[in-house]
Amino acid sequence: MAKSVFYHAGCPVCISAEHDIINLIGAENVEVVHIGEVRNRIDEAEKAGVKSVPALVTPNGNVLHINYGASIADVKG
Amino acid sequence: MAKSVFYHAGCPVCISAEHDIINLIGAENVEVVHIGEVRNRIDEAEKAGVKSVPALVTPNGNVLHINYGASIADVKG
Repeated sequence: MAKSVFYHAGCPVCISAEHDIINLIGAENVEVVHIGEVRNRIDEAEKAGVKSVPALVTPNGNVLHINYGASIADVKG
Repeated sequence: MAKSVFYHAGCPVCISAEHDIINLIGAENVEVVHIGEVRNRIDEAEKAGVKSVPALVTPNGNVLHINYGASIADVKG
């Protein structure tokens, strides 16, 4: 199975959701990307349709915004 | 593994998220509850902390609000 990508920015809501997602779908099935630190992937996240973090982009390209930590604009600062 | 519970209300955002969640975690690991139809479970969803649908309540009780379809108030009507 192709991996999902979990974008987050280190916020408490993000970390909590990251743990839940890894428990649910398995660490081997998800790439975790901290776009607060790996800033050259912010553009990729936006192009995938990510409006806020935490968000999970599924293997078929759908974006699941999970709870609400911060907007992409906030992450860009 | 205990099942997660996916609460939804039949909205397009809900149906899309339902397909994604089932693809990600497997139909056998999630109970799908349509609280627009099974109205006697709205109270249970609220007590679990569900504020809007679609939402996934994990086996450890965390609530993941996924995208945004409708508020619980909207579902109550």
